Amino acid sequence: MLRLSGVGVSGGQAAGPVVRVAEPLPEPPSTPAVQDHDAEAARIGPAAEAVATGLFTRASGVEGDAKAVLETTAAMAMDPSLSSRAEQLVRQRSLPAPRAVLEAAEEFAESLRATGGYLAERVRDIHDVRDRIIAELLGVLPPGVPTLTEPSVLLARDLAPADTADLDPDLVLALVTEEGGPTSHTAILARSLGIPAVVAVRGLLAETTAVAAEVDGDSGDVALSTEPIEVRSPERASGADWTGTGGTSDGHRVKILANVGAAADATTAVSRGAEGVGLFRTEFCYLAASDEPDVATQRAAYAEVLRPFAGRPVVVRTLDAGADKPLGFLNTAEEPNPALGVRGLRIAFDNPGVLDRQLEAIAAAADDSGAEVSVMAPMVATAEEAGWFTERARAVGIGRAGVMVEVPAAALAARELVEAVDFVSIGTNDLAQYVFAADRQLGALAELNDPWQPALLRLIELIGRAGTDTGRPVGVCGEAAADPLLARVLVGLGVSSLSMVATAVPAVGGALAASTHQQCARAAEAALAAPNPGRARAATREALE
Amino acid sequence: MLRLSGVGVSGGQAAGPVVRVAEPLPEPPSTPAVQDHDAEAARIGPAAEAVATGLFTRASGVEGDAKAVLETTAAMAMDPSLSSRAEQLVRQRSLPAPRAVLEAAEEFAESLRATGGYLAERVRDIHDVRDRIIAELLGVLPPGVPTLTEPSVLLARDLAPADTADLDPDLVLALVTEEGGPTSHTAILARSLGIPAVVAVRGLLAETTAVAAEVDGDSGDVALSTEPIEVRSPERASGADWTGTGGTSDGHRVKILANVGAAADATTAVSRGAEGVGLFRTEFCYLAASDEPDVATQRAAYAEVLRPFAGRPVVVRTLDAGADKPLGFLNTAEEPNPALGVRGLRIAFDNPGVLDRQLEAIAAAADDSGAEVSVMAPMVATAEEAGWFTERARAVGIGRAGVMVEVPAAALAARELVEAVDFVSIGTNDLAQYVFAADRQLGALAELNDPWQPALLRLIELIGRAGTDTGRPVGVCGEAAADPLLARVLVGLGVSSLSMVATAVPAVGGALAASTHQQCARAAEAALAAPNPGRARAATREALE
Repeated sequence: MLRLSGVGVSGGQAAGPVVRVAEPLPEPPSTPAVQDHDAEAARIGPAAEAVATGLFTRASGVEGDAKAVLETTAAMAMDPSLSSRAEQLVRQRSLPAPRAVLEAAEEFAESLRATGGYLAERVRDIHDVRDRIIAELLGVLPPGVPTLTEPSVLLARDLAPADTADLDPDLVLALVTEEGGPTSHTAILARSLGIPAVVAVRGLLAETTAVAAEVDGDSGDVALSTEPIEVRSPERASGADWTGTGGTSDGHRVKILANVGAAADATTAVSRGAEGVGLFRTEFCYLAASDEPDVATQRAAYAEVLRPFAGRPVVVRTLDAGADKPLGFLNTAEEPNPALGVRGLRIAFDNPGVLDRQLEAIAAAADDSGAEVSVMAPMVATAEEAGWFTERARAVGIGRAGVMVEVPAAALAARELVEAVDFVSIGTNDLAQYVFAADRQLGALAELNDPWQPALLRLIELIGRAGTDTGRPVGVCGEAAADPLLARVLVGLGVSSLSMVATAVPAVGGALAASTHQQCARAAEAALAAPNPGRARAATREALE
Repeated sequence: MLRLSGVGVSGGQAAGPVVRVAEPLPEPPSTPAVQDHDAEAARIGPAAEAVATGLFTRASGVEGDAKAVLETTAAMAMDPSLSSRAEQLVRQRSLPAPRAVLEAAEEFAESLRATGGYLAERVRDIHDVRDRIIAELLGVLPPGVPTLTEPSVLLARDLAPADTADLDPDLVLALVTEEGGPTSHTAILARSLGIPAVVAVRGLLAETTAVAAEVDGDSGDVALSTEPIEVRSPERASGADWTGTGGTSDGHRVKILANVGAAADATTAVSRGAEGVGLFRTEFCYLAASDEPDVATQRAAYAEVLRPFAGRPVVVRTLDAGADKPLGFLNTAEEPNPALGVRGLRIAFDNPGVLDRQLEAIAAAADDSGAEVSVMAPMVATAEEAGWFTERARAVGIGRAGVMVEVPAAALAARELVEAVDFVSIGTNDLAQYVFAADRQLGALAELNDPWQPALLRLIELIGRAGTDTGRPVGVCGEAAADPLLARVLVGLGVSSLSMVATAVPAVGGALAASTHQQCARAAEAALAAPNPGRARAATREALE
């Protein structure tokens, strides 16, 4: 057995045969020069069509998000501008067809990159389509997840959204990746499907002889074996007997809420038993247009998301533009470190009108929908900033206003901050990245971004204590809240509501209902005293036994 | 009087007539098309030469750094490749000469940018040369600081190194800029010259009728007047009677040290009375070469810097590559947020050999020079990382090893961190940028990067207390240490050594010697309790009276 270790990002244990996700294709060479241009160019269209057909076929077998991802990728493969540019490159520069596809795709990717922001994120999709067409031309298997025929442990460098869209959770025992971090796509997907997962496992891909693996998604341990081992499926917390009113077994009340970003999410959240919404991201409304949407447009869009929650609490986060979500009409300057730039509420200081119009639309949508709406501001650093925001919210008649705690300074000024607002909500993903000065997008720094890091938990404790002392609610709306084990630590630290991806609601609600408030407090104490995330997990598990 | 406010970055009050630093030139148009190519192209060489001659003349009137900056800029103006590329553009595209210079310079800037890192920082110099040649061609004054004829308050968008190199401190009453931050070039220069300065003053440039100004570098207040006002020169702390052994008036010992980055700095530091070096930056040794310098080369380079400090303490910081200082042989991946990336000690985790060779060279240079050398690691986030570093330092026989505290997580784990090392040193500039999630390079976020922010001071208190409790030294080597007022707050927070730009040594040493340890403690208490930086400054001043 070869023992490796990484960052456990989705809990549970599993074992079984490994299936490797194919590595990227070798770069197709630009030589030898093509003699028969017409014949070579004519290969491209049919290859693209075959890829699109294959993707559409797979799309027909699945539902929901997975279907949408596959259909989008298929549509990109059918895009005639990509094929015709590749054909042109065959004719102009005598390139072999695979090389021509590569270069044509790179031109498209480059122009997407130049737009920045969300469109730039589509570069990955372009590369996905490109690789599939090239594989088709070369007659090899496309990179990505092969079709699984038995329950397996998947080993990969990292997983693309299209790779994971049609994963069958019953056939995936566990996910192990060499790259990625706790907030990567792989991690979020694994948690939502209840599949144990370990990311950032250095040396994973160098090991090529193993046929089976044991995976511990809690400790981050991975053992690779060259002999077959007995299949062990993960125990999935069913949460089936969870009542839908969040709290500990001895009646300490903790709201179990969902994070939503669009109307479809809201419906899912209700069906999974969320008591309300702890984080309603409003960026979707702005990303749909190139200009600021007017108040009526915003009002209608927000009301659609709010309606399923009539009579229930919903926390609407005001526009969090900037950083990886630039908006043309707002963000003008290029910044050397966008995550440390003018983002979130900071944009509103120079553009208060944009904030005021959004608050007006939120207030109106609240009336339209009957939801119990609060608002909160992203990227607040000081109590003064928090006070500025709550004043503007009250000015349009929104009675309940709070702020995100994701900047370390806000946590360090917890008491003053909490006193300036009606509630706070901790964004653990961004808070961790700033506390550790470690970009959450970088696999190499994934361990520092582990939400079990004791230094992060100490900061959360500061805020929890400020909330308890003042009687004001403290929520968590980062990924940490979706971990049934960590959720209990958070409650022990004084957190009074947990907001998460809807799929995690039953498991977290069920886990909390199985523990007493005192157990949570003991778990928190144990985690705080641990020297590192692994020991914090182990100490917590012991404290909860 | 029009009252504006910004961030006071260099203390003291002054008043007098204003002089505006000329704004950038309008962009020269590419039309009308030039008819006589030869005549137009022939204008470029002489213009470049006139610029170079002017700069060389100015260089002959000054000394030290200023001379070097002016001579470098002059040499760039003489570079024949810039002129000949511009002449080519006149001939090929019939561009007017000013436009041709603009485009040729942009091509050069682009290729510098592509190299990244330190070379990319020279882009500003290219632009400086470009603007001077264009102004010469247009027959207008070049942008930048005009020659001062009487004591004046300078108003500018921001100041370039070349702008400030030959400033006569006796003629500059104060500096006020619309952009820039507490760690900008303007701020550092002002503090080192003892000139009051306020940066990030929004609306400063929009006001064009004022003829005089009152500037308060402590509060950040700036009053502009359309009537002349009486000239008031800043009181400069002379520090002339400072003995050279740092400490409070009642004998509480605090080492007053200098930050150095090259042999010339070391000589200056000794002449200003520094007791030793609190931060010796070693990057210069790596930046000189494209490959890793060998141990013998490093040993010789370090020994040259260490020699003036024979018998005195010097803290050598190991290589802090990454972020804005990428090195070709180490940093490969492009990062979306380099300040949150694989930088400092993080690079050593994958390249321990580079660290070990540097430690070996430092140990040898210590023996060669007779200086009392310690080493410290940059960008440490956890006590485990700190322990890893101290082990490697001890392995090569370096008896004293510590770490920088610049990542908030390190401060939050202060007790465990301090116990894992022999000493710590707080890098306030980076610590502030992470605590406030605010890039220190952005003028718009300068207020958050103010080292007087109470949330930052609270974090420093955590470290100071851990140091006092364990009896291990806690230093500060960020810009905060160079502020005579803030230096006393830091001592009150438990800091036992202050390391700063050499020019600030007498003023800080003198200010500290004029206060008791208890006054410092009271000042710290007052600053911690303040709601914002301005009030923290005021409360400190009151506490020290």
